Amino acid sequence: MKRFLPILDWGRDYSRATLGNDLVAALVVTIMLIPQGMAYAMLAGLPPQAGLYGAMLPLLIYALFGTSRTLAVGPVAVVALMTAAAAGQIAAVGDAEFHLAALALAALSGGMLLVLGLLRLGFLANFLSHPVISGFITAAGILIAGSQLRHLLGAPIEGKTLVELIPSLIANLGNVHMVTLILSALVLGFLFWSRKGLAPVLHRLGLSARAAGLVAKGALFAAVAVSTVVVWGLGLDAAGVRTVGDIPRGLPGLSVPAFDLDLLTLMLVPAAMIAIVGYVESVSIAQTLAAKRREKIDPDRELVALGAANLGAAISNAMPVTGGLSRSIVNFDAGARTPAAGAFTAAGIALALVFLTPLFFYLPRATLAAIIIVAVASLLDFRALPRTWAYSRADGAAMGATIAVTLTIGVEQGLLAGVLLSLLLHLWRTSRPHVAVVGQVPGTEHFRNVKRHEVVTAPEVVSIRIDESLYFPNARFLEDCVNDQAADLPGLRHVVLMFTAVNEVDASALESLEAINARLKEAGVKLHLSEVKGPVMDRLSRSDFLDDLTGEVFLTQFDALDRLAPGLTRDTLAQPRRETSRSRLAPASAAE
Amino acid sequence: MKRFLPILDWGRDYSRATLGNDLVAALVVTIMLIPQGMAYAMLAGLPPQAGLYGAMLPLLIYALFGTSRTLAVGPVAVVALMTAAAAGQIAAVGDAEFHLAALALAALSGGMLLVLGLLRLGFLANFLSHPVISGFITAAGILIAGSQLRHLLGAPIEGKTLVELIPSLIANLGNVHMVTLILSALVLGFLFWSRKGLAPVLHRLGLSARAAGLVAKGALFAAVAVSTVVVWGLGLDAAGVRTVGDIPRGLPGLSVPAFDLDLLTLMLVPAAMIAIVGYVESVSIAQTLAAKRREKIDPDRELVALGAANLGAAISNAMPVTGGLSRSIVNFDAGARTPAAGAFTAAGIALALVFLTPLFFYLPRATLAAIIIVAVASLLDFRALPRTWAYSRADGAAMGATIAVTLTIGVEQGLLAGVLLSLLLHLWRTSRPHVAVVGQVPGTEHFRNVKRHEVVTAPEVVSIRIDESLYFPNARFLEDCVNDQAADLPGLRHVVLMFTAVNEVDASALESLEAINARLKEAGVKLHLSEVKGPVMDRLSRSDFLDDLTGEVFLTQFDALDRLAPGLTRDTLAQPRRETSRSRLAPASAAE
Repeated sequence: MKRFLPILDWGRDYSRATLGNDLVAALVVTIMLIPQGMAYAMLAGLPPQAGLYGAMLPLLIYALFGTSRTLAVGPVAVVALMTAAAAGQIAAVGDAEFHLAALALAALSGGMLLVLGLLRLGFLANFLSHPVISGFITAAGILIAGSQLRHLLGAPIEGKTLVELIPSLIANLGNVHMVTLILSALVLGFLFWSRKGLAPVLHRLGLSARAAGLVAKGALFAAVAVSTVVVWGLGLDAAGVRTVGDIPRGLPGLSVPAFDLDLLTLMLVPAAMIAIVGYVESVSIAQTLAAKRREKIDPDRELVALGAANLGAAISNAMPVTGGLSRSIVNFDAGARTPAAGAFTAAGIALALVFLTPLFFYLPRATLAAIIIVAVASLLDFRALPRTWAYSRADGAAMGATIAVTLTIGVEQGLLAGVLLSLLLHLWRTSRPHVAVVGQVPGTEHFRNVKRHEVVTAPEVVSIRIDESLYFPNARFLEDCVNDQAADLPGLRHVVLMFTAVNEVDASALESLEAINARLKEAGVKLHLSEVKGPVMDRLSRSDFLDDLTGEVFLTQFDALDRLAPGLTRDTLAQPRRETSRSRLAPASAAE
Repeated sequence: MKRFLPILDWGRDYSRATLGNDLVAALVVTIMLIPQGMAYAMLAGLPPQAGLYGAMLPLLIYALFGTSRTLAVGPVAVVALMTAAAAGQIAAVGDAEFHLAALALAALSGGMLLVLGLLRLGFLANFLSHPVISGFITAAGILIAGSQLRHLLGAPIEGKTLVELIPSLIANLGNVHMVTLILSALVLGFLFWSRKGLAPVLHRLGLSARAAGLVAKGALFAAVAVSTVVVWGLGLDAAGVRTVGDIPRGLPGLSVPAFDLDLLTLMLVPAAMIAIVGYVESVSIAQTLAAKRREKIDPDRELVALGAANLGAAISNAMPVTGGLSRSIVNFDAGARTPAAGAFTAAGIALALVFLTPLFFYLPRATLAAIIIVAVASLLDFRALPRTWAYSRADGAAMGATIAVTLTIGVEQGLLAGVLLSLLLHLWRTSRPHVAVVGQVPGTEHFRNVKRHEVVTAPEVVSIRIDESLYFPNARFLEDCVNDQAADLPGLRHVVLMFTAVNEVDASALESLEAINARLKEAGVKLHLSEVKGPVMDRLSRSDFLDDLTGEVFLTQFDALDRLAPGLTRDTLAQPRRETSRSRLAPASAAE
């Protein structure tokens, strides 16, 4: 029971002090979440209340099932963009079918996460590599910013990718609504300044450093309040500034939406992507925050919690949700101690829905767009691509492909391209593993690459270290490689395969090993293995290979050479050891 | 020039003795290929001449470009089945569109192989693992045998999978044509007996053992001749025995077929599968035969040769071709020395097309079906599945899935399921790598798993050996694992990650290592690496990681402990060595 309801754990020790901390955090997060929720709903192409609903029931559910004490769940920018892209494939923004598609995405991705969590298949999320997710987030951030141009400029700029957005922007330069533009510039300027500049000002005005930091988080709310009052007072809506308008007052009703099978089928792939991106983002945030307080999160139970939260979003007329970075950091900094802070946040949103919605009638959409821009600005990391490329061409290529395809073709295609390319490059690399002929380092029992180190070898023995697990993509390579290394060596009598780096021998590689053994046998050469790991040895002993093996299996490479070339190894061991190659400053020679 | 035309190599030393050998082999293969070509055309749903055309131009082209001296190229059973399945998706057997689809498959798969060869991308074929291809061949053999039931029983039994074939067989039990059934039984009985029984009889009749073996290969031709004469003499065609009928006399005209874009698009995926299956089969046969005579084949040039051969098939109104197992073995056994034997075979087929086609009018289709059954019987390997499962559950599961899906859903789906499942299982396995805490084996500088060996450790140092490359699927696992191993150890001051089995550290894993380093630093524990391979060290030195590393990088694990726990390692080294764990008979303790 406790396994799936962490609330039974932290709820028992809940104290008045914890309550105070959680309430302060909830207040700060609520003030931030009200405008963000409406903004992300707008980004997803949904009515503003969908974002507020997404900040209620899902938060209550996560508070019950979540293992992170500080993760703030709710609508987030990247998932909102993915929702808009997927729902936009089957309906136009504003249609009832469009919102139904968004709810289907929440229901499907929630169901998938829940099932993966119950089956403990959280490892599947690992296939989204760091470079791919980081490239995707940056590209999505650019597209999100581009999608808000229409609200910032008050002109009908449309497009799902840069290929569509840029021509549309150019074509609409003449249609920019100047009053909206001025309003956008003021709000954007204030919000960007407030990120660094507001807290010091408040501190100078007499607030404590901590209080100033917390109150500064209310900059979003201040922007909302002031711009709403300005629009109302000056009658800017009549001058063409678009506002949020009517929001239904009160709490969302609960009902299972009437999905048809066609809709669910069409939303299956996008829902899987939303599920994985949302989960990976959420878990990384949760892990980072948990590590700071030496807490632990459980990835499989996070799947269950996020899955249930999304199912809650689906039945409360909301939108797909996940853990958000900026809100979680605010929650953490504001002192949240338990998931109860999330439940209090949900209560705050409920109060806003009951009492405040009429006040948002004159809230300009440009303000919400500015809030989105400020939020995604922190997601962009343009230096990641050159840094990753410098470290690894394969990772850089996967990241570059993700960014390029996302920006030009679409978010789903970009993510898919990145995942497939990173898998393919991995397979390509392991299909041609690094192989080294090794010799004994004088003065030690250690064996290293003959090309990188001054080592001692025996003419009648070739020792080959294979730096990869042996499995189907490299099974044929293995045969060719041993053939090449062992061919044309006069006086050769023994081949030793050093298995230090071999973590698996699958059925394909086993056939290759059998073929190598048979061919060497015909040539009068014995095949030996050394340093075979336990799991690999257990596996090999289930086949006939060890019985057919012409040579032996040695515990260590030193044992092998000691037996096959007696005397030589002991002489080498007695030689003085050279210390030169141990320096950390000369990596290429420090290790091979 | 020579790189792409091996004929310039072997052609120069061509002698009269070689010519004699090649001619004998060509004669034997031609006699076998005439009925087989017609039979495989029938299996593919094509007119009989398509199979004979497939045994002409493609063979001439392979003789120019191929690097195997004994591979016999032409129509083969498995590729014929795949052709029938793919072309059957868009047209009915007998339509002009059906044959056009088969030619499109030859052209597309030929083009793909050619491009892969020119780009030296032959490694892609490695992703078809041994268990998947072996399972696929067995399942395809069963489907092929099932598809011939209609010819063997003279009843309209139809179906592409067992799910369709079995009900159709039951429904048609009352429609079996008795004369056809008796004919089939006689031919099948003779052919199965002749595989083992004919050569000894001929030997007893006075032929030399070798000559008897060669003449016995003519059993196919004898079955064809006798059954044709019987049908003609007894007028069995009038009694309802179906025969081959008219075959156009003369050589095929050369022309580029008029493919439309829709057809090519539809045939793209099946063509890719035919290309890969054909290539993998062909290369394995070629490698096996080459090894027997210590010759070498070049996988990338084989791609070019098979690709060109298939393009030749497409422009000569034939069908997709590849290297065939049984014919290649016959070619090898009959003494073929060079690819010229293939060219002579093509000449023999040309003579048959010009002079013999009228003789095949009364050849019963049941005889061709029996020839197919005998050929695929040797492909079936029912013991492979339990053997593979016993060795490795993952390989067994991939093989089982391939067989089950191929038999019940279809050949393309079966192949795809096998490839995807084997990739997924590989990724799943590497995402949870084996990890061992290691200690020093007394009397040696060697370090082994504390759980499998009696080893010595120091309380202030934890040494962790990670038995896998560090990359995105296991990057998060790595963090958890070091956290778990290093948590709650009082007095811990050093963590050493032993990198013997780490062949790669990608960008995702680098971030994890940085996180581990930072977390251990906060806890006052230093992180060290040992036995880092050259390529990995080169890579790490391109990042900031080595600068931020709190500890050192040691050449050997022994050095690491020697420095971090001085004295202990030398004492352990001085202890007497225990030899018990070296036995090959106790694998679990022999190696860890």
